[in-house]
Amino acid sequence: MTMSWHMMVEFEPPLIACVVSNANFSFAALRATRECVIAIPPRKLAATVVTVGNVSGRNIDKFTEFGLTPMTAARVAAPLIAECFANLECSVSDTRLVPKYNLFILEVLKAWIDPAQKRPKTLHHQGFGTFVVDGPTIKLKSAKP
Amino acid sequence: MTMSWHMMVEFEPPLIACVVSNANFSFAALRATRECVIAIPPRKLAATVVTVGNVSGRNIDKFTEFGLTPMTAARVAAPLIAECFANLECSVSDTRLVPKYNLFILEVLKAWIDPAQKRPKTLHHQGFGTFVVDGPTIKLKSAKP
Repeated sequence: MTMSWHMMVEFEPPLIACVVSNANFSFAALRATRECVIAIPPRKLAATVVTVGNVSGRNIDKFTEFGLTPMTAARVAAPLIAECFANLECSVSDTRLVPKYNLFILEVLKAWIDPAQKRPKTLHHQGFGTFVVDGPTIKLKSAKP
Repeated sequence: MTMSWHMMVEFEPPLIACVVSNANFSFAALRATRECVIAIPPRKLAATVVTVGNVSGRNIDKFTEFGLTPMTAARVAAPLIAECFANLECSVSDTRLVPKYNLFILEVLKAWIDPAQKRPKTLHHQGFGTFVVDGPTIKLKSAKP
């Protein structure tokens, strides 16, 4: 599935919060398997990201349908996506806010990057197929992370 | 304070999740007052964002110190920041994940934009004073938000 709403929660252990609608096939899968892979797509996959988000995995195999390449993960059964520049193998670590908000806390068990993708640009979803792509980087002195 | 970790949780009512370290003065303030303003800074405030994030409001008045202009909010006691292109007046609506993760669920009670700031660029924090600024916008056809 395509997911927009997520954030970092902790560095150590690495935790991520995300919202997965209970209308999605992935919601049931996440609750049942308690694991997933978060794959971060580069700019050139933008059209695929939208298409993947507009159909359900209940009916089709999205890897085959959209030309994505599954790769075996090390710590979870869900596959990585070879075309993505980063893949995070995650387990569900807290479901207390799932009933009310569909909000899962995930722990990242293993992280992969594709070294062939140099300085990839990420996509920031603004809604209904509109994305802002990463622009210039600013580096300022900071005492804090 | 400067906050990096936040995400949308729901459209209606508008909910936001955020992580505020319990080492911050703002953590105690948020727990005590149960309200806040989330102010979204434009690119030109990047240096101020870092400076504000590196000192504590325990010791100084950051508005005075850093040349920011407080404006009265409509629904909460905390002030808006006039220089920011958007200000969200929020109340704390769920604290169940505060003890374990410092994660607050906020409801947006009122949202303001500065109409004088056209197409403002947002700052995406990558850690230790490095930010990516919004680049180009991509518009694709989508059936979903």
